[in-house]
Amino acid sequence: MNARIITIGDEILIGQIVDTNSAWLARQLNDLGIAVESIVSISDSREAIHKALDEADSKLDLVIMTGGLGPTKDDITKHALAEWFESGWNEDQEVLQRVEKHFSIRGIAMPDVNRGQAMVPDNCVVLTNESGTAPGMWFERNRTVFISMPGVPFEMKSIFANQAIPKLKSRYIGKQIVHRTIMTQGIGESTLMEIISDWENNLGDLKLAYLPSVGSVRLRVTGLSDVGEGLQARVNDSVKAVLPLIADYAFGFDEAKLEEVVGEILKSNNLTLSTAESCTGGYISHLITSISGSSSYYNGSAVTYSNEAKQNVLGVDPAYIEKFGAVSEEVAMQMAEGVRQQFQTDYAISTTGIAGPDGGTESKPVGTVWIGISSKHATYALKYSMGTHRERNIRKSALQALQLLRKEIFKNLGISLKEALS
Amino acid sequence: MNARIITIGDEILIGQIVDTNSAWLARQLNDLGIAVESIVSISDSREAIHKALDEADSKLDLVIMTGGLGPTKDDITKHALAEWFESGWNEDQEVLQRVEKHFSIRGIAMPDVNRGQAMVPDNCVVLTNESGTAPGMWFERNRTVFISMPGVPFEMKSIFANQAIPKLKSRYIGKQIVHRTIMTQGIGESTLMEIISDWENNLGDLKLAYLPSVGSVRLRVTGLSDVGEGLQARVNDSVKAVLPLIADYAFGFDEAKLEEVVGEILKSNNLTLSTAESCTGGYISHLITSISGSSSYYNGSAVTYSNEAKQNVLGVDPAYIEKFGAVSEEVAMQMAEGVRQQFQTDYAISTTGIAGPDGGTESKPVGTVWIGISSKHATYALKYSMGTHRERNIRKSALQALQLLRKEIFKNLGISLKEALS
Repeated sequence: MNARIITIGDEILIGQIVDTNSAWLARQLNDLGIAVESIVSISDSREAIHKALDEADSKLDLVIMTGGLGPTKDDITKHALAEWFESGWNEDQEVLQRVEKHFSIRGIAMPDVNRGQAMVPDNCVVLTNESGTAPGMWFERNRTVFISMPGVPFEMKSIFANQAIPKLKSRYIGKQIVHRTIMTQGIGESTLMEIISDWENNLGDLKLAYLPSVGSVRLRVTGLSDVGEGLQARVNDSVKAVLPLIADYAFGFDEAKLEEVVGEILKSNNLTLSTAESCTGGYISHLITSISGSSSYYNGSAVTYSNEAKQNVLGVDPAYIEKFGAVSEEVAMQMAEGVRQQFQTDYAISTTGIAGPDGGTESKPVGTVWIGISSKHATYALKYSMGTHRERNIRKSALQALQLLRKEIFKNLGISLKEALS
Repeated sequence: MNARIITIGDEILIGQIVDTNSAWLARQLNDLGIAVESIVSISDSREAIHKALDEADSKLDLVIMTGGLGPTKDDITKHALAEWFESGWNEDQEVLQRVEKHFSIRGIAMPDVNRGQAMVPDNCVVLTNESGTAPGMWFERNRTVFISMPGVPFEMKSIFANQAIPKLKSRYIGKQIVHRTIMTQGIGESTLMEIISDWENNLGDLKLAYLPSVGSVRLRVTGLSDVGEGLQARVNDSVKAVLPLIADYAFGFDEAKLEEVVGEILKSNNLTLSTAESCTGGYISHLITSISGSSSYYNGSAVTYSNEAKQNVLGVDPAYIEKFGAVSEEVAMQMAEGVRQQFQTDYAISTTGIAGPDGGTESKPVGTVWIGISSKHATYALKYSMGTHRERNIRKSALQALQLLRKEIFKNLGISLKEALS
């Protein structure tokens, strides 16, 4: 069972958009036990599409295409497909009704150009698009299935999840691939590797990958076997064996996000949180509130970018700012305490630092960040050096603050970090 | 002049990471006049790498590979390359010194595994990595150049910008590709197409693409010709001709971000801003502070997620919340006024709404968002329906708020939207 994902669009080849569809599709296919052999991005020209179809034909079980199905003139995939499959056309009445309805419920007259979206090659099965106007299409040729979907991510996702997956499931029973990923924060790839090298050398036929991203390294264990060989249990056991070695850094599994993990801890213990952000500029707050339901434990944030705001909104002592500077242990502590009182929460975290790329001094270089934590148990602040890249700096500081909070809550609950993950 | 980008790593094929390197590289190559023919993602196995090299060999002028050069055991690209180019090995002393220094300035002992990073195939030119430990490599075979770089984005970018680009420039003089993109906000793809269809039909050999993303549609005009045909002027003229038709929506050009555009307007007019965010949860603040230098015009934000915070921090009247609800015109206005006073700024924007996916009612369905604007000239709020998807909802609301602010400032400065873009 092997698949290729083909994304179509000049906007990808000139780098104007980042292709996020492929990663999402790859995860879905993986869950179905279908291995993605490659991902290819090509131009939205008839020639490039035909060439890609020629190359994929009969070598693969499944070809998934996204992009080039919108109503506007630069969208060409549907015509290239009809040609390649030597197909006639018909107007699909269900699609036409959907397109008409799409506009009528928005109170907009249907632009003429959208009527053409109901024309489909007559040798494909239409995959209904419940979120937009361009239909998906399912073709078969010899042993290969070809699926074409629009490139707009939420339309593509809706078609794939609701229409394509059920059809794929009924067609294929895959070889089993099992992944288990441990999410870590606060340790680099090389150091992590040294800590777990003995364990890694005993993995046998399981495969290990280190996946670094800003402020985080993921450890992925992969097993591949025929169905029914207890693969999941073997992968789980190997993960269990490594956890005690990295309990200081691991915070969750698979696609877990630190903001989600922290949210669950707060929620299940009936605790509330507020944040006081200077150098992170609202990014911690954005992470926390990106989680649906966060209003039950998150009261809000004071993003105090100016010194006056630190004083007026958080009650930071101007004499402290004068004496120690805005980027200091004392100010970080006062910010955390101030926001906890102001927003009446159990916990508070604060950040104050120099995000860069400018603004550093010899004693406080760019990347210097103080993170404060406050609760009824204690208030303190820790200092970090986050590097000189603004965007990375902001993200690293935010993740470090969430990890510190996670550890502080577990400490106060009397739960060890090893227990926390088991 | 054609190029292929090959990204190597199972983490891409199982969808665990989104490949952002390719988009960045594609933009760089485009600027050099090198067209990207395709982008391919493959497994980090010896076989897949050799197959990709076989397929690319002699058909292309340039092959750029990223990924698989780190110190850990899943990184295999360097060995696969040495085999394919039938190369011996040598220890590169400059790389070794860099790796040693990388660890010594961080006060960390060099892990043994990193010493291997100084071993390089002896028929490549090393491309120095100033940001990390894995060197880049430049191979040539027949007419094709092969460049291999690590997959960590900031290392890859540093190698490509500082080492590869100068070498590529001296080797190639490309055909000319000119792009000009108009950034729009607040209008859908189909409606936009209707407004500009006459203009579009007269574009001649220039190419137009509609590039929708969440809350924004980009209009890209592309011209391709031999050097010296006045291509840039023709593209610029066509863009100039369409602007008056879409002045209500256009906010900038090329890679301009709305938060950047708004920041420049504030800065150049000596104006200051604060924000009061409920449903956007700090995302507006994050966008604004992602711009370096924003502290000169941005004082901060009150992210008031709870009703108590709206009252205590922003002085919203509890009777208003009781009577009209937290998601209401009145509360949006009080939030904007409150934060403007609290943070002592010229302008303030506020958001209050139901981000979803839960929490809607019949009279206030998910996606209902009030956006408030306050300045000494006026305070008002407008209502929007942003849809049911939380993440999209937050981003759309944030962009809409920034666009409203942009228009309000221009209005108060007596500058028309048509003048603003010329």
